[in-house]
Amino acid sequence: MAKAIVSIIMGSDSDLPVMGEAAKILESFDIPHEITVVSAHRTPKRLYEFAETAHQRGIEVVIAGAGGAAHLPGMVAAISPLPVIGVPVKSSNSIDGWDSVLSILQMPGGVPVATVALNGAKNAGLLAAQIISVQDPSIREKIITYKNELSDQVMEKVKRMENPEH
Amino acid sequence: MAKAIVSIIMGSDSDLPVMGEAAKILESFDIPHEITVVSAHRTPKRLYEFAETAHQRGIEVVIAGAGGAAHLPGMVAAISPLPVIGVPVKSSNSIDGWDSVLSILQMPGGVPVATVALNGAKNAGLLAAQIISVQDPSIREKIITYKNELSDQVMEKVKRMENPEH
Amino acid sequence: MAKAIVSIIMGSDSDLPVMGEAAKILESFDIPHEITVVSAHRTPKRLYEFAETAHQRGIEVVIAGAGGAAHLPGMVAAISPLPVIGVPVKSSNSIDGWDSVLSILQMPGGVPVATVALNGAKNAGLLAAQIISVQDPSIREKIITYKNELSDQVMEKVKRMENPEH
Amino acid sequence: MAKAIVSIIMGSDSDLPVMGEAAKILESFDIPHEITVVSAHRTPKRLYEFAETAHQRGIEVVIAGAGGAAHLPGMVAAISPLPVIGVPVKSSNSIDGWDSVLSILQMPGGVPVATVALNGAKNAGLLAAQIISVQDPSIREKIITYKNELSDQVMEKVKRMENPEH
Amino acid sequence: MAKAIVSIIMGSDSDLPVMGEAAKILESFDIPHEITVVSAHRTPKRLYEFAETAHQRGIEVVIAGAGGAAHLPGMVAAISPLPVIGVPVKSSNSIDGWDSVLSILQMPGGVPVATVALNGAKNAGLLAAQIISVQDPSIREKIITYKNELSDQVMEKVKRMENPEH
Amino acid sequence: MAKAIVSIIMGSDSDLPVMGEAAKILESFDIPHEITVVSAHRTPKRLYEFAETAHQRGIEVVIAGAGGAAHLPGMVAAISPLPVIGVPVKSSNSIDGWDSVLSILQMPGGVPVATVALNGAKNAGLLAAQIISVQDPSIREKIITYKNELSDQVMEKVKRMENPEH
Amino acid sequence: MAKAIVSIIMGSDSDLPVMGEAAKILESFDIPHEITVVSAHRTPKRLYEFAETAHQRGIEVVIAGAGGAAHLPGMVAAISPLPVIGVPVKSSNSIDGWDSVLSILQMPGGVPVATVALNGAKNAGLLAAQIISVQDPSIREKIITYKNELSDQVMEKVKRMENPEH
Amino acid sequence: MAKAIVSIIMGSDSDLPVMGEAAKILESFDIPHEITVVSAHRTPKRLYEFAETAHQRGIEVVIAGAGGAAHLPGMVAAISPLPVIGVPVKSSNSIDGWDSVLSILQMPGGVPVATVALNGAKNAGLLAAQIISVQDPSIREKIITYKNELSDQVMEKVKRMENPEH
Repeated sequence: MAKAIVSIIMGSDSDLPVMGEAAKILESFDIPHEITVVSAHRTPKRLYEFAETAHQRGIEVVIAGAGGAAHLPGMVAAISPLPVIGVPVKSSNSIDGWDSVLSILQMPGGVPVATVALNGAKNAGLLAAQIISVQDPSIREKIITYKNELSDQVMEKVKRMENPEH
Repeated sequence: MAKAIVSIIMGSDSDLPVMGEAAKILESFDIPHEITVVSAHRTPKRLYEFAETAHQRGIEVVIAGAGGAAHLPGMVAAISPLPVIGVPVKSSNSIDGWDSVLSILQMPGGVPVATVALNGAKNAGLLAAQIISVQDPSIREKIITYKNELSDQVMEKVKRMENPEH
Repeated sequence: MAKAIVSIIMGSDSDLPVMGEAAKILESFDIPHEITVVSAHRTPKRLYEFAETAHQRGIEVVIAGAGGAAHLPGMVAAISPLPVIGVPVKSSNSIDGWDSVLSILQMPGGVPVATVALNGAKNAGLLAAQIISVQDPSIREKIITYKNELSDQVMEKVKRMENPEH
Repeated sequence: MAKAIVSIIMGSDSDLPVMGEAAKILESFDIPHEITVVSAHRTPKRLYEFAETAHQRGIEVVIAGAGGAAHLPGMVAAISPLPVIGVPVKSSNSIDGWDSVLSILQMPGGVPVATVALNGAKNAGLLAAQIISVQDPSIREKIITYKNELSDQVMEKVKRMENPEH
Repeated sequence: MAKAIVSIIMGSDSDLPVMGEAAKILESFDIPHEITVVSAHRTPKRLYEFAETAHQRGIEVVIAGAGGAAHLPGMVAAISPLPVIGVPVKSSNSIDGWDSVLSILQMPGGVPVATVALNGAKNAGLLAAQIISVQDPSIREKIITYKNELSDQVMEKVKRMENPEH
Repeated sequence: MAKAIVSIIMGSDSDLPVMGEAAKILESFDIPHEITVVSAHRTPKRLYEFAETAHQRGIEVVIAGAGGAAHLPGMVAAISPLPVIGVPVKSSNSIDGWDSVLSILQMPGGVPVATVALNGAKNAGLLAAQIISVQDPSIREKIITYKNELSDQVMEKVKRMENPEH
Repeated sequence: MAKAIVSIIMGSDSDLPVMGEAAKILESFDIPHEITVVSAHRTPKRLYEFAETAHQRGIEVVIAGAGGAAHLPGMVAAISPLPVIGVPVKSSNSIDGWDSVLSILQMPGGVPVATVALNGAKNAGLLAAQIISVQDPSIREKIITYKNELSDQVMEKVKRMENPEH
Repeated sequence: MAKAIVSIIMGSDSDLPVMGEAAKILESFDIPHEITVVSAHRTPKRLYEFAETAHQRGIEVVIAGAGGAAHLPGMVAAISPLPVIGVPVKSSNSIDGWDSVLSILQMPGGVPVATVALNGAKNAGLLAAQIISVQDPSIREKIITYKNELSDQVMEKVKRMENPEH
């Protein structure tokens, strides 16, 4: 298997049903990736080591998901020079997702996190592919194909809605 | 001047004081960029033409800022295959910025926008640099230097706070 | 069948259970209408063509429903000269509906969207009828009748509540 | 002067700086209109008489602005068969405008209010013009012209931003 | 049966499960009351007549419950000189109850509504009893007894929690 | 001077500019009242003594204003059998008033607080007058007069707005 | 049994499923504790006596949980010199927990409450242990062990996720 | 000077006007303390070293203030066994303080942060004193004195308000 260039990490294994969507998208784009748990609050040393070394072992983009007072994406972004995509997860201990969103989005000047929608791990995967496409024209082509398929799927539904009897 | 690879667009020229921060960062990283106004609501044709052709003329990343019911970042992301960074602007017609944030962040599956903090154009510029760094190791080095400088600036303040009489 | 003068569009076929209420009201007022899917984010070209031509093919009012970062109503309003009624849909990817409401309601000066309540497609249908009534006195009469029926239904319930044993 | 076909009402004369924008737009479209104060809470009888008779004296659209627990637009919509446009006003007694928005927008099924953005009286005027245009093709033409002017104004700014020295 | 001195009204019969709690409390205090449906939006004339005449037929306190853009309590308060208690109902068309709360609570200066908690009809009944107690010392005594019972019930639970085996 | 029957208390003397409005209204209705500071958090003993004895010394209604985590109205309501009117104050340590509103409004079943709008002390005074009017028909008459004056003041403004040159 | 040094109180026995988590943690740290119901609103005298005497009978930390307009933690903090940990409970009468959080967190200057996350009773127990550890080094050791176990548990999950077949 | 037992840290020197209030309180209680800047996002290594060693050099309580996506308090709590008090700061890049509050308060189970009110650094200082008082009865006495002074100050204001002419 090719060496991972995208790393998907999450604060808890209970985030896997959400974060697995990012892996599916990367798989469909044939982008080598890894997926694991890194908890900012329960394994802070592991977080530090992960973030300090990710770019040295060939990772190009980090996707980090967390819920509640979600510090994982922001702390990786603080330590690593890589682009970090943050996925706010609507976990069971979250206040309707607002805490997850705000504690990932509202990073101070100097330390960006590319935040996607609440539970938007699929879009995190796509965004990672778009970032990778900056150096790999074949991924750019796949993204254009993907967008055409999105449109085709809608047109299928349009036909069915406009001709419900068929 | 080198051909722009990052395009900074905004919904209104009143967003310039905020969005100009993105340009400053790109300048400091010597990343060729352009800056202009594209209004999703007042110049929809221009929006379509911009988004359809940006990747064809060498743009690699789009930074789009808008306020209120902010549709510019999401519509560019709908049309263009490029990674799009969205900057929610706390414009005068915004409800404390919540509308700007939510109408940029909460994109549906299939069409990501990399959202940064409210008025976070500086971070949008940095994120664009991080994305460009995936193909350009010299930018990666500059990002590492930038992060070290951030740390140094804090340490200066630490010294001053701990030794206020000096 | 008479040519449609109201067009009901929605961002996803999953919005049909909500948006179908608009069609029911128009049916009950014998106002010719059409209903289809137009996705701002997955079929942006279709959106543009729809919005550019709707008034040319006899549409007088557009009802557009969408959820999350809902850009469909606002983008139709940007392109078409017709009055556009926006229905914020509380879709599964929405943060309790707040994103849907704010990204439809908070349009900038120059590009109005007539926004109704969250999931308020029934009222969107009524509002379309009220708009059509400006040129068609028979619809005005039907609206007055409809309002009387609303009142009568309440009075029925009043009777039942005040005389529970009957 | 021609008989008013649009009536602009507001809950308090302190709303005039906001609501006057609706009148300006209607003036620019040569649509006859009236403007006055009707307070749902301080002049309830006047509200009832206004709403019961507006359509009988030739009014085709009502624009109603109010702030806080804003009941004026919804009560006119309850009584009158006319389309009612509601303008949430961020008045001094409002909690950042949220009360104004929600108490106008969230009308129950059967009684629509066409809500525009917080303080969005300009858009209320435009929406009234769009509604009038359903019966008056000359207004439709003016709306198309207005939209072209919006675009032209943006293009002027584009030129100035792209050629700052001129 | 004694003539009602408290009138419990609600915007819809679907509010009865909530609003019935007010009636239960008044029953337990032997305060004569009536309960019915008055819809501000669907029966505006009935609302007006109710509010204009309530004090003339011996009503001393009005309890009004409604949800969403809840105008019933405020409009009764606008027309009637009586104290009006407003109960925000978390109805199915409400955005988590925020609209119900804000459109009842945020009344302008001059027209108070005594607002209780979301779905707090029980407290509305108690508040009505406290208001009646201003003229009827026997009700004051019952309120003191009620408060003692509240305390006794808690003390029972204290005993059970501290001695779980008994 | 007559013995106070309404007691106006506030958590801090910095609330006086807001709470003084309640006193002004009661003065204009010639209702004897007192005004003082009782802090739930800084003078808890004073709070208990106040609440335990208020009804014994002839107070009929308590108006309590506080901001932030506002416990004063609810604690008085817990201890005293009197009707308690709560005024959420937008104090300097408040998060836009939301904390003040929610910590006064959302009382549990059994212990009502009659909550008025944020900073709505004027309405608290009026509500107290309405409660007193249950036993005093002369106050009822004054309330009817007050409401008529509210209406007259609006009609004055109507005239000025409709005839701006006079 | 050792004399309790931590007291866990809650506003209602319905809070026990949440608040019991605090007791479990204290048990696992062998810290003597008690658990009971004290209602600020239904047993205000009991609250006063509890808070006045807790430190005299050897209690060192109070954990207080409550929901809605939650006054229990703040009132104990007003009366007692002990550190008070507040647990906002998402009770059935709460507006998504916001009222519970704000009415516990937003205490005025001079009267702190150490607030933990919504329903965060487990963390309240841990925080109590950390406070006790200031005087008891053996508890400090247990906390270090506890943190190591948290990390170990995550590492177990990491292994399972990275080697799903084992 | 005595060795610090309370450490006050903040994410940025711009937080000093807020966080200095904590130092003032500790000074008034003669509790040795230190104050410095530790930025989770700009000096992550310094954060780790600080948090790993604080308890080893005699610190007993950490007070950490930060704004926006505030990760400082939670990350210290993740690494250090000490009790951590978090102060949400309403910094210039914050959305009305909501992000600061939620990203500090909503910590996951296992890693508590004792959160105080927005900008509540004074209370953070008091809470630290209360925690220290668990091992130092002289501090307990000072806290009791402090509370009495709070009460006395209010009583002074009561006198002035009740006897305004003196």
